Amino acid sequence: MKKEMSLLQKERLLYRSQIPDILQDPLEVSLEEVPIAKENSAIRELFPKTWAMPLFSLVKGKKCILAKRPLRVGVVFSGGQAPGGHNVICGLFDTLKKIHPESSLIGFQDGPGGILKDRAIEITEELLSSYRNQGGFDLLGSGRGKIEKKEDLELSEKVARSRKLDGLVIIGGDDSNTNAALLAEFFLQKGCETKIIGVPKTIDGDLQNEHVEISFGFDTACKVFSEEIGNIAKDALSAKKYYHFIKLMGRSASHVALECALQTHPNLTLIGEEILEKRMKLQEIVDLIADLIVKRSLAKRNYGVILIPEGIIEFIPEMQALIQELNQIAATGGDMQTATILSLLSKDPATLFSSLPHSIQEELLLGRDPHGNVLLSQVETEKLFIAMVTEALAKRKDYAGKFQPLSHFFGYEGRSALPSNFDAQYCTALGTLAALLVHLEVTGMMCAIGHVKESVSQWTAKAVPLTSLIHLEMRKGEKKPVIKKALVDLKKKPFLTFQEAREKWKLQDSYHCPGPVQFFGDRKLCDSLSASLYLR
Amino acid sequence: MKKEMSLLQKERLLYRSQIPDILQDPLEVSLEEVPIAKENSAIRELFPKTWAMPLFSLVKGKKCILAKRPLRVGVVFSGGQAPGGHNVICGLFDTLKKIHPESSLIGFQDGPGGILKDRAIEITEELLSSYRNQGGFDLLGSGRGKIEKKEDLELSEKVARSRKLDGLVIIGGDDSNTNAALLAEFFLQKGCETKIIGVPKTIDGDLQNEHVEISFGFDTACKVFSEEIGNIAKDALSAKKYYHFIKLMGRSASHVALECALQTHPNLTLIGEEILEKRMKLQEIVDLIADLIVKRSLAKRNYGVILIPEGIIEFIPEMQALIQELNQIAATGGDMQTATILSLLSKDPATLFSSLPHSIQEELLLGRDPHGNVLLSQVETEKLFIAMVTEALAKRKDYAGKFQPLSHFFGYEGRSALPSNFDAQYCTALGTLAALLVHLEVTGMMCAIGHVKESVSQWTAKAVPLTSLIHLEMRKGEKKPVIKKALVDLKKKPFLTFQEAREKWKLQDSYHCPGPVQFFGDRKLCDSLSASLYLR
Repeated sequence: MKKEMSLLQKERLLYRSQIPDILQDPLEVSLEEVPIAKENSAIRELFPKTWAMPLFSLVKGKKCILAKRPLRVGVVFSGGQAPGGHNVICGLFDTLKKIHPESSLIGFQDGPGGILKDRAIEITEELLSSYRNQGGFDLLGSGRGKIEKKEDLELSEKVARSRKLDGLVIIGGDDSNTNAALLAEFFLQKGCETKIIGVPKTIDGDLQNEHVEISFGFDTACKVFSEEIGNIAKDALSAKKYYHFIKLMGRSASHVALECALQTHPNLTLIGEEILEKRMKLQEIVDLIADLIVKRSLAKRNYGVILIPEGIIEFIPEMQALIQELNQIAATGGDMQTATILSLLSKDPATLFSSLPHSIQEELLLGRDPHGNVLLSQVETEKLFIAMVTEALAKRKDYAGKFQPLSHFFGYEGRSALPSNFDAQYCTALGTLAALLVHLEVTGMMCAIGHVKESVSQWTAKAVPLTSLIHLEMRKGEKKPVIKKALVDLKKKPFLTFQEAREKWKLQDSYHCPGPVQFFGDRKLCDSLSASLYLR
Repeated sequence: MKKEMSLLQKERLLYRSQIPDILQDPLEVSLEEVPIAKENSAIRELFPKTWAMPLFSLVKGKKCILAKRPLRVGVVFSGGQAPGGHNVICGLFDTLKKIHPESSLIGFQDGPGGILKDRAIEITEELLSSYRNQGGFDLLGSGRGKIEKKEDLELSEKVARSRKLDGLVIIGGDDSNTNAALLAEFFLQKGCETKIIGVPKTIDGDLQNEHVEISFGFDTACKVFSEEIGNIAKDALSAKKYYHFIKLMGRSASHVALECALQTHPNLTLIGEEILEKRMKLQEIVDLIADLIVKRSLAKRNYGVILIPEGIIEFIPEMQALIQELNQIAATGGDMQTATILSLLSKDPATLFSSLPHSIQEELLLGRDPHGNVLLSQVETEKLFIAMVTEALAKRKDYAGKFQPLSHFFGYEGRSALPSNFDAQYCTALGTLAALLVHLEVTGMMCAIGHVKESVSQWTAKAVPLTSLIHLEMRKGEKKPVIKKALVDLKKKPFLTFQEAREKWKLQDSYHCPGPVQFFGDRKLCDSLSASLYLR
């Protein structure tokens, strides 16, 4: 055990995830094909070997016909941290050793780049023993490197062959699993035996579909954010003088904001997908917030809590148009100065740009990602809304309240938290399944654990062909295969539940404080599911 | 039970604090005088009736000689929230009812202003039942109003008399307890029978002394912040690319930062009191941080965690001098514009001002508190250091790393958190003691629960005369009686422990993740004490 651990970290080392019945015995399972529609022929050309792969369900009863032999498997973390990553590796390791005590697990370091550089460590029981049920990805590190280009695919094949890998498990989000699909196809084309298995990871919750009920880490991260939001709501209610504008990490989709809203009942929560559907203008959103503040003020409530998803700007059509023009101007070497930009923009974007607070104008003009695009994640939307709402309130004749806004951004503290019991168990199951899929010799599959609303023993296991998740999208003028991000579905229960309750939350103070994640005691509490899952 | 509660909030309603042996039976205690030095004659003139009051220790065995009669007591929350406030009221209520079932407790609303306006509610078991062990001050609300002026004292007396209060319990920080001392003196002078009892509250931890081991709320708030810091440290260690500059709420003194450092082992923690003692210049602090970053970079560690106490600026002598000049210029109607201010400042402050980032210059010139002073709490010190460190690193020839800083401010989410088991029990004991002191007919006393390192049954109880804590300080050109803020003592164990460990924390990654506060299970975990207490 490492010395540098808190008491709780040490206690958590002792937690043992329950393994779903179906995953208990690696030699007592086999795959059963589940028919799915294979109409995704648009990608046939790019994935000739893998586009028509079937979906498999893990079933019990029949003895596995494969010989019991040691397996050599590689694993890598890709992209931002999500609570539970170490447990995926634990599930993988434990199952590989169950399959054969001489199996070995190699961890590539610092993300996909570690595969290309063949930087790896052998994962041993001793090493792993300090990482069970711990947060972070620090056992291996992670990185945002990609494996897309031909030379990267070739380098990966070389490493897989030289290390004689039976399988390579990629723990990542939509982009990383797209890379996994490319690798699986490439390896099959080249006759490389290494099986590629993807594990759905991201706190953003945007990697989910019919079979993948949730990406791991979402549950814990939302619980950490909801603890913070609930506490702040309690503070608002006690101090009665501040409006808290809380921006939440979670990239484009508004899953995290929706989940936190369901857990904490704030006065207002912006949902990007709804804004897009209603084609709302920025000023309309500002007015919506100002209306709330005026109404609450009439009820002598000059305080409140407002949740803002990190990706909100991408869902405001006129902002999209503005950003697109800015990107074009930047790409063609236009003068990105506040003074000159207005003359370069067309009418509507120019009007919108002029209406933005000065600091936001600067952020839009200065920040650039490696592709030269506007750095949306750098735009302080919480401050944008505060500035614009302040302006809107100044014009309201029906408003006599005092508007004291405070802004917050919650993100990093949720990505590396100690995984909740749910994420700990879910990730162990995902890792176990990944090992079984390598053992069962399938490739190009994403691990999918189902029925997570049931007790762990009843959870199901599937292998979903990565190509079934892939669509073609225009990126930088080219059609590229990508796994489509799952957006909040405005017709499904999580959003509908929120929609039904939110009018009440606006004016009344119905705040819930979920409090800190609990690991011990009443299982209703410590094994609780996020609302997005139990309302699914 | 209120409907609007999370599962954990409901579970916490059922928690029952253990009551220290000495506080178990209100009719089996009496007061024993403990001799203390009474050399505080400077305040004799201001507090003729109360300056020489003795310190009492609660002792058992002798029957209380007072008749058992119903008591009428008022209570008020004053200032910012601190976890455990509701439990003070629970302890107070339960004990008053134990003393006599017809006792009554009146809660003044929205802070000391509620006393002046006589806005109050009767606290009943039913009402209180949804607030046991809950965070926030929302049962009564709070406020930053003061009771200092003669008319306020007179108004308070009127309310106390008309409500026939036997006692008035003021739950507050240093300023509020100074007000309590003024009230106690005034009431005695006027022959008003209402006893004034203070309860030490503040997450800042700066209300502590020989007898008051800690102010309530400090334990929980530091645990909440340490959860966040520990998670972020884990994130830093996994992503390996960010320097996190974390500002921590906690007003002037650096107790909160020190405690969080002891819990999480960040790479660097600024301690205001040490900076003052060493009379460090701003640039020296910047260089200290830059040195760390350069050294870590040489060890290929381009990431880290740096803690900054909210009040740091007040401890940098040259910043104090600058702020003093700015306040003087503002007070005499000088032109507070960036362009003109340099000509109005004397040499050193002008040089310092010029060296500050533009955004910080603006914050110093624009924000003003109600007294016209610079709004120090608005100065984004975390961004100040980021800007100046960026500049310093650019000049370093020995630095080839990539500096990617991120800033955070943790505060509000700690003030209203669900109280830890320690704060829940500590506050129940404080409230119980407050009731007993009213019952025992003493006034002008602060509740002090001692030996908190021992098991709860062994905790001691004292009544510390408020005047013994009061000193005269110059405020706005006048000598004013105030309770001195307790600063971090550089000669005591918490700081010495930190000092001994910090060299190691700088270059190695010794981060601890304390994780979320636990309420159930192993008592080592859920009843744990903050380091500042067990090292005391």
